[in-house]
Amino acid sequence: MTNLHPAAELLESFDRYRLEQFQNARPPLLYDPVVYMMNLGGKRIRPLATLWVARQLGGDPEAAMDAAYGVELFHNFTLMHDDIMDAAEMRRNQLCAHVRYGTSAAILSGDVMLIESIRYLREAERKSGTHGLCDVLIRTAREVCEGQAMDMEFEASREVGLEDYIEMIRRKTAVLLAACLELGARIGGCPDLAETCYSVGQWTGIGFQLEDDYLDFYAQDAAFGKLHGGDIRRKKKSGLILELCDRFLPEERKDFLKWYQEEASDEARIAGVGKAFEERNIAGIFRQRIDSYKQRAMQAVDTLDQEGGLSRELRAFVEWIFSRSY
Amino acid sequence: MTNLHPAAELLESFDRYRLEQFQNARPPLLYDPVVYMMNLGGKRIRPLATLWVARQLGGDPEAAMDAAYGVELFHNFTLMHDDIMDAAEMRRNQLCAHVRYGTSAAILSGDVMLIESIRYLREAERKSGTHGLCDVLIRTAREVCEGQAMDMEFEASREVGLEDYIEMIRRKTAVLLAACLELGARIGGCPDLAETCYSVGQWTGIGFQLEDDYLDFYAQDAAFGKLHGGDIRRKKKSGLILELCDRFLPEERKDFLKWYQEEASDEARIAGVGKAFEERNIAGIFRQRIDSYKQRAMQAVDTLDQEGGLSRELRAFVEWIFSRSY
Repeated sequence: MTNLHPAAELLESFDRYRLEQFQNARPPLLYDPVVYMMNLGGKRIRPLATLWVARQLGGDPEAAMDAAYGVELFHNFTLMHDDIMDAAEMRRNQLCAHVRYGTSAAILSGDVMLIESIRYLREAERKSGTHGLCDVLIRTAREVCEGQAMDMEFEASREVGLEDYIEMIRRKTAVLLAACLELGARIGGCPDLAETCYSVGQWTGIGFQLEDDYLDFYAQDAAFGKLHGGDIRRKKKSGLILELCDRFLPEERKDFLKWYQEEASDEARIAGVGKAFEERNIAGIFRQRIDSYKQRAMQAVDTLDQEGGLSRELRAFVEWIFSRSY
Repeated sequence: MTNLHPAAELLESFDRYRLEQFQNARPPLLYDPVVYMMNLGGKRIRPLATLWVARQLGGDPEAAMDAAYGVELFHNFTLMHDDIMDAAEMRRNQLCAHVRYGTSAAILSGDVMLIESIRYLREAERKSGTHGLCDVLIRTAREVCEGQAMDMEFEASREVGLEDYIEMIRRKTAVLLAACLELGARIGGCPDLAETCYSVGQWTGIGFQLEDDYLDFYAQDAAFGKLHGGDIRRKKKSGLILELCDRFLPEERKDFLKWYQEEASDEARIAGVGKAFEERNIAGIFRQRIDSYKQRAMQAVDTLDQEGGLSRELRAFVEWIFSRSY
């Protein structure tokens, strides 16, 4: 498995464009955190999704770039505000924006990132002569907020099952990746392909997020870049934990969650959960679940078979998303 | 002076529409603070501005209502996030949303209010067949964030003069009122009147905000609803304080601000500032300044003289804004 993806030059031009935005924007209190956040790195799968599809369909490259920048700005707005809500300290091995610049500045900078993300989509509309791009982001943005709210509600509830959890990550994560592929199709002048691209992105996004949960406990090496079992240390009801819980009777589930969230020490929790996973082959079951989302994404691609080039590119995109071992 | 304004029926229909929005929206963690905030009351001058102009120009009433609701939603998003940044506890004699629902919920609910405010403007575009309404809000929203950032920077600086302060309130407050009148003109099918309406709103908005500063110290009665001298108790560099400071030599100014922000007790500050205002007739000078903004607004209206009905309505609007005694 390789991390060198087949669209490296798209990422390079994206990064060039990214570095030109918000240079010397004033006042610094508002814009410094924006630049800081956008320079933290990250996988940039969302802008890549838009650029990849738009290029294949012959969409206007400048419009695609504005849309790609807009979705990355939107994604980073969500990270900036989520980090405040989660009281996180570090992101990508650097200080979170609210730790570095203060919570008030991070709230306000996040707000302007959200506003500007929609403006970039409007620019993309203007440059490509395509209507409705900003509506895709507006609709998606509301769902992302709903997903984040569900995530917060779930942390306080013991009734949540894996199905609820998947609906939560669908809204919090998957719809944005779906929207990115849809935007690529629309900028490429193929609104008739938008729905299929959206489906591909949605299934891929769910699988991607479940894989994140999987790798939190089962990553092979240090490249994952996060603490081993971080979710379990934080007593999080991750996908893996809920996969386990769904195998318990109601009474067992209640006892387990009480032990998991209130009684066990960190080390006991990691060891106990690892043993429970092993006894019930949760790793294998969960990998199958992840694969089933990859398959659904590929099946959505198959419905496009008359569109040779786009099918090939979407398959490559899905493979790339699922190819990381960290 | 009366508080019964000449467009009461517009406010009534706005309130009817307002109460229908976000009913039973889920999840409650996200939408309950939205409904709470939108039900706190307030002057609703922004939606009224849009409705008033659109009605006079014969704009589609449903489109005008969506735009009016969108700008009020946007305004309340700024209040919700500003209250977090200011660590405020009460708003309109009720708990601030972040005190009642928690800071995380208030950040997230504010985000969705911002998103939805733009969506309502998109709805207004669709219903009225008018382009570019959401761009007015997007452009304005960025300026409002910049104004809020300047406000935060100013609080930490002793170099700020009244001119800087007025530029700050222009962005933080006045451009939104300006945008509301502009939206009314656009929905009314008169984009050629948009610039003039914008000017009227901008001058009125600056005057309105300066009057807020004036009334903080000089309100005649309890109807103002805020603590007498609240700005001065909070050591704020309000317009009145900066009007005074602009009359000092640099050295006096430095000494005064040191005394004002670091040395004086609350009561000594109120008494000392009151005496300094009186010695230099700051109340009279500041009232003249407020009046000059009202005059500029009226002069902008005068450029419309061929448009009899709209001139009359804009003058009534400006008079209404400046008529409050609290």
